[in-house]
Amino acid sequence: MKEQLISITSASNPRIRQVVQLQKKRREREETGLFAAEGIRLFSEIPEEQLEQVFVSESFLAREDAQIILKRAERCEIFAVKDSVFAGMCDTKTPQGILAVVRRREWTLDEILVLSDKPFFMMVENLQDPGNLGTILRTGEGAGITALILSKGTVDIYSPKVIRSTMGSLFRVPFLYVEDMTAAVSLLKEKGIAVYGAHLEGSVPYDSPDYTQPSAILIGNEGNGLTGRTAEVCSRNVRIPMEGAVESLNAAMSAGILMYEVHRQRAAAANQSCND
Amino acid sequence: MKEQLISITSASNPRIRQVVQLQKKRREREETGLFAAEGIRLFSEIPEEQLEQVFVSESFLAREDAQIILKRAERCEIFAVKDSVFAGMCDTKTPQGILAVVRRREWTLDEILVLSDKPFFMMVENLQDPGNLGTILRTGEGAGITALILSKGTVDIYSPKVIRSTMGSLFRVPFLYVEDMTAAVSLLKEKGIAVYGAHLEGSVPYDSPDYTQPSAILIGNEGNGLTGRTAEVCSRNVRIPMEGAVESLNAAMSAGILMYEVHRQRAAAANQSCND
Repeated sequence: MKEQLISITSASNPRIRQVVQLQKKRREREETGLFAAEGIRLFSEIPEEQLEQVFVSESFLAREDAQIILKRAERCEIFAVKDSVFAGMCDTKTPQGILAVVRRREWTLDEILVLSDKPFFMMVENLQDPGNLGTILRTGEGAGITALILSKGTVDIYSPKVIRSTMGSLFRVPFLYVEDMTAAVSLLKEKGIAVYGAHLEGSVPYDSPDYTQPSAILIGNEGNGLTGRTAEVCSRNVRIPMEGAVESLNAAMSAGILMYEVHRQRAAAANQSCND
Repeated sequence: MKEQLISITSASNPRIRQVVQLQKKRREREETGLFAAEGIRLFSEIPEEQLEQVFVSESFLAREDAQIILKRAERCEIFAVKDSVFAGMCDTKTPQGILAVVRRREWTLDEILVLSDKPFFMMVENLQDPGNLGTILRTGEGAGITALILSKGTVDIYSPKVIRSTMGSLFRVPFLYVEDMTAAVSLLKEKGIAVYGAHLEGSVPYDSPDYTQPSAILIGNEGNGLTGRTAEVCSRNVRIPMEGAVESLNAAMSAGILMYEVHRQRAAAANQSCND
């Protein structure tokens, strides 16, 4: 392990500067096909084949369990940097002393379409808040989504804030960006998957469709909801009823309520068929 | 209207300094019984009888609709301050030029117990994140909660971040802090209200209880969940099933999923009785 360690002392080292760029710029992430993931917990979730480089601070190396944590990075370069340099590479305020450069792994529509006989897709159109996207992915994993489909106008799933708020789901749930959301909705419908758009003026309450069939839930931008084009092409627009004077729910909350309704129906159906 | 306007030029004016204290310190808010609310939208939601003072920036006064917006503050003092001074009073980065000092209005347990024949309470124990609390109140209004009950260890509902994230629900949903959450749960049970604690190891799935009866949903701290004492005294602990490797959901998300399950059951029951 020790032989693997390469020491970097200067913050202007090109590798350090690349990490800083990966943290800040979507473009850098897209051009290199890489992204950065911080923290011990997240590091333990990264599939080994996606690990490219690992950076650790001197304080981290002084931990008793440093070698154990680093064991899974056996096949890649590990760089030791001073705490002050390390802090400058991080997006978090209190870094844990470990940061990985990770190879992106994205799915194609063809790949995700064969993952399940009764797929359950979550789709987001032009979502802007990183925390919302992270929460949707995390909650989606809990609700058992097959995959997440994002419009290209959605916030970058590899941005540091999204990665943090997914709590590791990023490495466990298949996802892909699509160029044209309306076209993607049409394609899913052709494949026999009903696409339900969340809409304040949806024609039916969200709990009335039969989600035990192949289904997709689609949610739009925080301020504007779904684009008109996409709302029109959905199989149905569903609404979440609201009491009081509430005009809308938070986008991640709406997605969570809808996804767990799908989960509830599917669990009830599975339970029923066990009892039959 | 013009005669009402009092000009303040110095940031060290005691009234300005009090607003700054109200924004920063829970203690100041508790001792004075006041809090600050920023922004045009929120201002329009404040019940007139709770309005104490209004501060506006010079830019705000230059708006064509300034007098219309201020109409509901007819009976209170309005202070005009320079934009630079106003910015220093605000918690938001891009202030809208209006801030109100508002009298707190809290309910008692006796008051909220008579609000409904079939009450639906949301309860939070030691919740710490202001955004989570705000989201729970906003979603709770949408789900039709009767009132929100908070343990005294919960973040201050009058903190600027909570107020902002409630989107006005703060002024529409009754709420109260209780000294002893375990005692409050026991009291509700004595009154015939079933209290369901959200718990990772809950004995039943969250959708199995009959929430059309008088019910309360109780959720705990982000990191630690419910205290052992409180979990024990609940009528039942319910769990939200999770697929994949998700260990827990965000606290506000869990609360939202549970509250909307109550709403779903109640709406279905109301619909059923209409059809009978």
